[in-house]
Amino acid sequence: MTAPASGGPGRRVTINDVAALAGVSKGAVSLAFNDRPGVSPATRERIFAAAGQLGWSPNQTARNLSGRRTGIIGLAICRPARLLGLEPFYMEFISGIEDVLAERSCSLLLRLVRDLDEETALYREWWRGRTVGGAILVDFHRGDPRIPPLRTLGMPVVAVGHPSLTGGFPSVWTDDASAAAEAVRYLAALGHRRIARVGGPSGLGHSGIRAAAFAATMAELGLDGGRQMATGFAGEEGARATRSLLMSPERPTAIVYDNDIMAVAGAAVASEMGLSVPDDVSLLAWDDSQLCRLTHPPLSAMSHDVHHFGEEVARTLFGIVEGTHEGPRQVPTPSLTPRGSTGPPPRA
Amino acid sequence: MTAPASGGPGRRVTINDVAALAGVSKGAVSLAFNDRPGVSPATRERIFAAAGQLGWSPNQTARNLSGRRTGIIGLAICRPARLLGLEPFYMEFISGIEDVLAERSCSLLLRLVRDLDEETALYREWWRGRTVGGAILVDFHRGDPRIPPLRTLGMPVVAVGHPSLTGGFPSVWTDDASAAAEAVRYLAALGHRRIARVGGPSGLGHSGIRAAAFAATMAELGLDGGRQMATGFAGEEGARATRSLLMSPERPTAIVYDNDIMAVAGAAVASEMGLSVPDDVSLLAWDDSQLCRLTHPPLSAMSHDVHHFGEEVARTLFGIVEGTHEGPRQVPTPSLTPRGSTGPPPRA
Repeated sequence: MTAPASGGPGRRVTINDVAALAGVSKGAVSLAFNDRPGVSPATRERIFAAAGQLGWSPNQTARNLSGRRTGIIGLAICRPARLLGLEPFYMEFISGIEDVLAERSCSLLLRLVRDLDEETALYREWWRGRTVGGAILVDFHRGDPRIPPLRTLGMPVVAVGHPSLTGGFPSVWTDDASAAAEAVRYLAALGHRRIARVGGPSGLGHSGIRAAAFAATMAELGLDGGRQMATGFAGEEGARATRSLLMSPERPTAIVYDNDIMAVAGAAVASEMGLSVPDDVSLLAWDDSQLCRLTHPPLSAMSHDVHHFGEEVARTLFGIVEGTHEGPRQVPTPSLTPRGSTGPPPRA
Repeated sequence: MTAPASGGPGRRVTINDVAALAGVSKGAVSLAFNDRPGVSPATRERIFAAAGQLGWSPNQTARNLSGRRTGIIGLAICRPARLLGLEPFYMEFISGIEDVLAERSCSLLLRLVRDLDEETALYREWWRGRTVGGAILVDFHRGDPRIPPLRTLGMPVVAVGHPSLTGGFPSVWTDDASAAAEAVRYLAALGHRRIARVGGPSGLGHSGIRAAAFAATMAELGLDGGRQMATGFAGEEGARATRSLLMSPERPTAIVYDNDIMAVAGAAVASEMGLSVPDDVSLLAWDDSQLCRLTHPPLSAMSHDVHHFGEEVARTLFGIVEGTHEGPRQVPTPSLTPRGSTGPPPRA
């Protein structure tokens, strides 16, 4: 599912294409990418957006590559180390990346960072020190502060996130908005009117996209007050949010979670409170790791092949490094896998 | 919990100590480590064992380090990528390693390999190409084929496994035998006579240690026929093994698992077969990730701070690189955390 680059597939994108799309001269593109004065901020922005849309990187990158350890790809993750160990998503994602890297005898350089500034400094060091041949950027925020400094670095980057968040970097993304809408529509079709959502951190781009789509779909269906709670993705936070929702006077009859581990925790909370799943409350997980099939009842989920997502990200980065990349790449939208944890709501 | 090096703590181990312990000359130690003729295989073996016991590496290593990227530590894992994404152990272990690496601005180079030969070749390439400053070796087999070629390489290596398996490499290990014995004794004390074990692959060193200790403790307590099944650690295999055990005419009343995900799967199988946990069957997990506290009932487990294990491994490797390492390092033995999934057996 690759969006065709303008000019048709197969033809190599050049600086001329970027200039034409941005409505500027070649010289302006060059100035923008070399971080030189003479181009207004708005024009720079337009140039970077055009380059991102076309998947074009400046020649400087191609020149720099020759002397580099292109066998090493960098990935920095800005999450507490302990949390990372508990969430199935990242390990499945990394295992997908590793599958493609192994085919090419490449390795992944992994670093956990405390904040986005540290991440930016790290990438600068990795790139300037010729440690890595490219990088994978994840967990985009709205107005992400990593974008401007990394854009001027000239390092091949694949961005994991919706193109509206990734600031012109070639991106690999999945349609979180459609998936969140499908989750709400499915539960509404079963008869649920009070649907809640236990989401990720509110500052995180993809959590924000899901939150907005959830709210919009609830409103569209005339179901107002769909309560949403933000968490840091940990199972214990999912348990706490579920307990709070199930104790509220306007108890939801269905809950959508932003990952698997929180849904597993939610099922245990329902059981601890003497509520039956799905007779008293329906639960819908996200990502659909093996966990969802190992509980009883097994968890319905918005299924997403996270391993394949990782593979596509690594393939896209190689495409960027090799100059064969052709624009944003969308992986399949998470789709509903109904299992035993969702059903009609209890009779009022 | 560091075993003191002979000569007392604090004093730097030298080639003289190695020669003395092995009962050979300094020259013989040097010949053995430089892979030169003139030392019999048995003597070489004794020298390597003495060096390993003292945590000594040849000077050549120290010399080589100067020009290397000591900021990068290598870790190859020989498991299918998809499986790796599903087991909490490795991600928690890696997150512990990363915590220590981050303190020193170091990064982890991660590669999945298909077999041990590929792993050995990879380390040779990483070390000779000055890509890494040291490596972490995991998943030791009995008579592990990686040991001889990597020993002659001179790369700083920390081995994760019992010293009886790691062929003289400085090791970080946990007492799996005592933990397996404790698991059996606890279940026996509750009154169980038919106890089964769902273990990891039989060729894997630590699975073998647990299997032997399980069998020995069963025999010691006069409980014979403790059935053991080998799996590849995946949840689905744990489910299959549990189903097979619970369908057998001599159904066990308690099952010990080698990880968490198989125990979670086992609990779902019991529920699917209409058996109550712990009234009909007691289940005991291993490692004790967050998963065990998120199920209902929460799973009793042989708890093990895997994150801390990873931290100790990284610290030990830095000690080896910096010449301050002092012999094998034991991390705390997994200890019993009783929760809701274990209780007395049903009355006969």
